[in-house]
Amino acid sequence: MTVAGLHTLTASEISRLIKKNEVTVEDYARSLLARIEKRDDIVHAWTYLNPDLVIKQAQRLDGIPHAERGPLHGVAFGIKDILNSEDMPTEFGSPLYKGNEPSMDSSAVGVLRTAGALILGKTVTSEFTVANTGTNTTNPHDPKRTPGGSSCGSAAAVVDFQVPLSVGTQTAGSVIRPASFVGVYAMKPTFSTISNDGLMTYSITVDTFGFFASSVEDLQLVANVFALQDDEVPVEKPLNEVRVAMMKTPLWHLAESGTRDAMDKAASILTSHGAKVDDVSFPPEYSDGVALKRMFSLIADGEAQAAFLKEYRMDKTKVAKEISDLVENKFNYTKKERLQALDTYARMRPAHDDLVSKYDAIVTPSVPDIAPVGIDWMGDPSFNILWTGLHMPVINVPAFTGSHGLPIGLSVVAGRFFDQHLLKITEVLSVPLVENGGWRIR
Amino acid sequence: MTVAGLHTLTASEISRLIKKNEVTVEDYARSLLARIEKRDDIVHAWTYLNPDLVIKQAQRLDGIPHAERGPLHGVAFGIKDILNSEDMPTEFGSPLYKGNEPSMDSSAVGVLRTAGALILGKTVTSEFTVANTGTNTTNPHDPKRTPGGSSCGSAAAVVDFQVPLSVGTQTAGSVIRPASFVGVYAMKPTFSTISNDGLMTYSITVDTFGFFASSVEDLQLVANVFALQDDEVPVEKPLNEVRVAMMKTPLWHLAESGTRDAMDKAASILTSHGAKVDDVSFPPEYSDGVALKRMFSLIADGEAQAAFLKEYRMDKTKVAKEISDLVENKFNYTKKERLQALDTYARMRPAHDDLVSKYDAIVTPSVPDIAPVGIDWMGDPSFNILWTGLHMPVINVPAFTGSHGLPIGLSVVAGRFFDQHLLKITEVLSVPLVENGGWRIR
Repeated sequence: MTVAGLHTLTASEISRLIKKNEVTVEDYARSLLARIEKRDDIVHAWTYLNPDLVIKQAQRLDGIPHAERGPLHGVAFGIKDILNSEDMPTEFGSPLYKGNEPSMDSSAVGVLRTAGALILGKTVTSEFTVANTGTNTTNPHDPKRTPGGSSCGSAAAVVDFQVPLSVGTQTAGSVIRPASFVGVYAMKPTFSTISNDGLMTYSITVDTFGFFASSVEDLQLVANVFALQDDEVPVEKPLNEVRVAMMKTPLWHLAESGTRDAMDKAASILTSHGAKVDDVSFPPEYSDGVALKRMFSLIADGEAQAAFLKEYRMDKTKVAKEISDLVENKFNYTKKERLQALDTYARMRPAHDDLVSKYDAIVTPSVPDIAPVGIDWMGDPSFNILWTGLHMPVINVPAFTGSHGLPIGLSVVAGRFFDQHLLKITEVLSVPLVENGGWRIR
Repeated sequence: MTVAGLHTLTASEISRLIKKNEVTVEDYARSLLARIEKRDDIVHAWTYLNPDLVIKQAQRLDGIPHAERGPLHGVAFGIKDILNSEDMPTEFGSPLYKGNEPSMDSSAVGVLRTAGALILGKTVTSEFTVANTGTNTTNPHDPKRTPGGSSCGSAAAVVDFQVPLSVGTQTAGSVIRPASFVGVYAMKPTFSTISNDGLMTYSITVDTFGFFASSVEDLQLVANVFALQDDEVPVEKPLNEVRVAMMKTPLWHLAESGTRDAMDKAASILTSHGAKVDDVSFPPEYSDGVALKRMFSLIADGEAQAAFLKEYRMDKTKVAKEISDLVENKFNYTKKERLQALDTYARMRPAHDDLVSKYDAIVTPSVPDIAPVGIDWMGDPSFNILWTGLHMPVINVPAFTGSHGLPIGLSVVAGRFFDQHLLKITEVLSVPLVENGGWRIR
């Protein structure tokens, strides 16, 4: 492989080459920078990228003796600009924080950096992750379409070979939805397993850190660095021993042809490979999808009242209207309703853990359909909110194609704190799905 | 009143004088600085205090036209050094962050600053709020005793007239316990009503911002600035219409003579003033105090594994052993147990809201007894964890004295999102309690 092609490798592949001294971090960095230079005018994935700083960091990493290198040595990451980074500006997609330069890394970025990651730059986020509009990042497969939000830059950069790994956050569907729209893997682990410190919080009850990759192996690499651990080390099962719950969810009426076909196709592929596949419904007491969506908004948007009070007070003219509306509680949400919502989701969590405990995994929609046309509206996160609210770990598997040959992902979901199990089972399930689903990342 | 005595005023009192142009913020600041200079060698409440910066800020505030002044104009605050502040170092009680200078205020500090507060300095915290030892802050009433932790500096500074208001955070009992040990008011509002952004999180599920004051009126001032709001504006009730639940809790076996006497005295004072007072137990399914304590640790200490992973990876030799033990999961907590704990506390929350809805407030212990001797161990937060875990708002009322004439507080507690109601009812209850309880702040 020439240096020029290094940017096409997965994180695990480049990591092996760097370990074997076959590639320097600097050469690798130059290959990524060249790719970005070529593509940035179309994709606009980065809000901050300083080639000099990248090369300096790469050279610093090359100077570290092998014995002292971390598990991510030289592997490049894009960081959603909602997470503080100590050597780059962090602006949260907000004019209020133009040029803000944090003195310390967010917890997650610090964990990556101490593991030897090359922090390449900051990727575009919508304002405070709340706005579902307002960025110029495009879907690399069709620049007329959105890559999905709010982690638009992180998703687009990975699928466009500008960086092999990136990180983001999800309140409603800000990790899994863009992963589906651009056709990459992404993992949102169990709530609370990765620290949210040093990111701009939208909803303290549901905000979850997540990461994007182009293979399950790469997701695994990141999960291990964050010390994600189940009570038991998961054992690998052959497909013909796997039990899958296909869950259309109480929001199935939102699914359009792309997702309907993907769910059908997934069931038939898995069945034909010997897996036991059941259609499973939400428990009857949680079968009102409209109510579940409204309850999710009561939690997330209710908590946003406190979350963005500071910014509103700093200068409300510099805060997007959809955010100042939340602070002002324009929807007249009551605390009583919020409590009902909080307590309902809290009761749903063990109920869904129980439900999934009879299966190896849930397979469920990631999005209603392919990425919509236009970059002004970042798409519908409805299917994601259920699992975010349930605190369950989710992986988007980018296996299918919808109309225009564009990607459609499905979500594989496990019970809370079964993150390693989820990775293992996704590794097994994704093989026939990707082989027969129609979507290829490379 | 001479300038020299201004430091003894409550926040509300000084605010009125500043509004009427009877006192400048600068004069006020000088009075506080003089008090601090006189007492700091004994109390050690501050980890950062720069008199020049304070005077500069005071002069800036004096220069703001009245029409543009915020509701806290010129009122001084001590900030627990676990919250980022943009003009002062923030070290989290940790050698890892020596000299760390954040680029932006934490959300809560920003809200205070935009309301015109004079940010006086940073108050001492134990390391990452986790350590229950390791600071040199003393109890102003007896320097051989602890002021309680982890918000030791914030509590000690207020009762010692070094600052009228201060802020802190509570995971287990880090606001209410020190408030009781030093004899001041403190409020821990409902979880999620004040943003935790920009503070060092210990447990994302329970960490709650709180504040210290020397009167209920002052607590109210702060609560209003943070836009704490109930669904309904609370109405003031005369004492003879008030119903109080005296809750000894399933941890009553930990209460010693000071707290036992205070609870008896409170019941008899309130009864003699016409209030209806019932002894109320926790629901039977939540009556195992030892199990509730262990479940709380499973949540808080379980979540600490992820919370301090970054710092552990930066340099574990610079992290206190009790913190690195958590990251390493030395107690072998399982995820399964953590889930049971999370789901049990989640179920307890609406059960306790229901319970308190039959009353105007709960009165319950803040601490086992007076502040213990020694500053190495910051005391037992057991009584606080129940209410922190329940996410319910709590106010410590410093009304009683135990042995050696030292203060003992009791907690007044309301249902979730009844913060304004709690303030109003505490205003009513605290009058006879303070009048007859034996403790005087001034």
